[in-house]
Amino acid sequence: MSVTVVGSVAYDALETPWGKRDRILGGAASHFSIAASFFTDVRLVGVVGEDFREEELDILRARKINLDDLQQVEGAKSFFWAGRYDYDLDVAHTLDTQLNVFAEFDPQLSEAARESRALFLANIQPDLQRRVRQQCGGARFAGLDSMNYWIDTAKDSLLETIGLVDAVLLNDAELRMLTGKPSLAQAARAIRELGPSTVVAKLGKYGAGLFTEEGFFALPSYPLETAIDPTGAGDSFAGGFLGYLATHEPPYSDDVIRCGLVYGSVLASFNVEAFGSERLQALTEKEIDERFREFKQMTHFEPLPARSLAARS
Amino acid sequence: MSVTVVGSVAYDALETPWGKRDRILGGAASHFSIAASFFTDVRLVGVVGEDFREEELDILRARKINLDDLQQVEGAKSFFWAGRYDYDLDVAHTLDTQLNVFAEFDPQLSEAARESRALFLANIQPDLQRRVRQQCGGARFAGLDSMNYWIDTAKDSLLETIGLVDAVLLNDAELRMLTGKPSLAQAARAIRELGPSTVVAKLGKYGAGLFTEEGFFALPSYPLETAIDPTGAGDSFAGGFLGYLATHEPPYSDDVIRCGLVYGSVLASFNVEAFGSERLQALTEKEIDERFREFKQMTHFEPLPARSLAARS
Repeated sequence: MSVTVVGSVAYDALETPWGKRDRILGGAASHFSIAASFFTDVRLVGVVGEDFREEELDILRARKINLDDLQQVEGAKSFFWAGRYDYDLDVAHTLDTQLNVFAEFDPQLSEAARESRALFLANIQPDLQRRVRQQCGGARFAGLDSMNYWIDTAKDSLLETIGLVDAVLLNDAELRMLTGKPSLAQAARAIRELGPSTVVAKLGKYGAGLFTEEGFFALPSYPLETAIDPTGAGDSFAGGFLGYLATHEPPYSDDVIRCGLVYGSVLASFNVEAFGSERLQALTEKEIDERFREFKQMTHFEPLPARSLAARS
Repeated sequence: MSVTVVGSVAYDALETPWGKRDRILGGAASHFSIAASFFTDVRLVGVVGEDFREEELDILRARKINLDDLQQVEGAKSFFWAGRYDYDLDVAHTLDTQLNVFAEFDPQLSEAARESRALFLANIQPDLQRRVRQQCGGARFAGLDSMNYWIDTAKDSLLETIGLVDAVLLNDAELRMLTGKPSLAQAARAIRELGPSTVVAKLGKYGAGLFTEEGFFALPSYPLETAIDPTGAGDSFAGGFLGYLATHEPPYSDDVIRCGLVYGSVLASFNVEAFGSERLQALTEKEIDERFREFKQMTHFEPLPARSLAARS
């Protein structure tokens, strides 16, 4: 199946202890698309301003991402975000947000986009997410991301939208905040009771957890020597996850969903190795395969009983 | 091999959103001993005051822990700690610390303790840890825990002591603080360059990471529905880890060390299910085995290639 993603395409200004970039390709839908493009065909639904350069479009085209539904609005400026990270890269300090053309974003899906069989609703206003979901009636697997801002200001709408998707991908604090539950296990159950079969808890540098009908699965993150810039890692995660899933036919077995979580983690780990999407632009399928194998190695153990366990009671 | 542990035995007053306890058995060496006792014989080196009750000693005796090296000092009071945790149990807020008899703790090891072949230096002043390590010349595997306070006030001594042990168990913030490195991978390498073959990064509710000659291994934590009290979880982790290792002969293969990490995680997860050591007091080997199998299930995945991956390049 091909995947359609609806979300932001932006310019980012980024600053971390390891360097800075003044104006590079950003936005959730950009990161998602590039990551997913390693697995399947991707269609990007979004909006940019007149200032959006061919240079950035070429980055997306190089990954064969379909841009027929990327609107460019004359006389408008693109969404711009400036952020700074401290030493441990845990918290993004927003320095500037200019929504510009994104403030009026009201996704209009082409016929082709409406026929998508896999859909990702990146972090935008939950009413818009729901409208898109309803337009894509034939989607056999739909995933959703959101953020604390919408939990604060549009919680009911978000919960209604969640009821219409198959997979929710949120970070652990968001999951607990949205549900008011103290543990991830309880929060995931509450979300699954709303409809989604699959809840993915993004744990940042601690990896990711998965809650499905069959139970719990979790992965550590890849032990990078030096993380450079986490911007977009969550979207690259989602792109690897849904992109991989789209190469299989739903409904998905737990085996497939678990592998999706690994591919998501693989793509997220590469994302963090450079600014913005720079590392993913240079990524190869061979590198993806190698890191997938490393994930297998770093999570595998063979049960070896304690030699004297049986002797004590 | 039997294990000797040197560290605190205390009374704790604990308060979490799920209840409170006014005066229960606490201390790193207590938690460690009880956890390790499910795997091997344990000898506890510590000190308590005249106020220490038979009731608490009986908890340790019930686990067949050897208390010959637990000194009881007349006219003195036992170490007392009072702490409170908020909703997410991440941070212990200290309400009261009375070192009492523990302030003068200068471990005197019996002949039997000196002959220990496995040793755990729980979190005490690093000079004392080093003196104990030197007294136990025949120990074939020694592990060490510490805390931010000693990193701040006795860093050089701690680094010297670390050079004398086989395994360092610290939380991730402590590892990065001690080495001044931004990533766990770099911090673990810096520690391993001082001598220890094994570095365990305790990640709290995010699990644990392991760095050895053979590479990296990581485990999520067990997805508890409701965590009640994290006090002593790190020490129960260490007890499960070293207790299990002691049932095998060093030098340890990575397979054995990885299983040790799983057993550590199993014991830590039970620890958190009730106040202090209450859950471990009621624990059975059957429950340990079951949860070990659950850890296998929740970390296992079978590589399934993306169906269309090869088609794209």
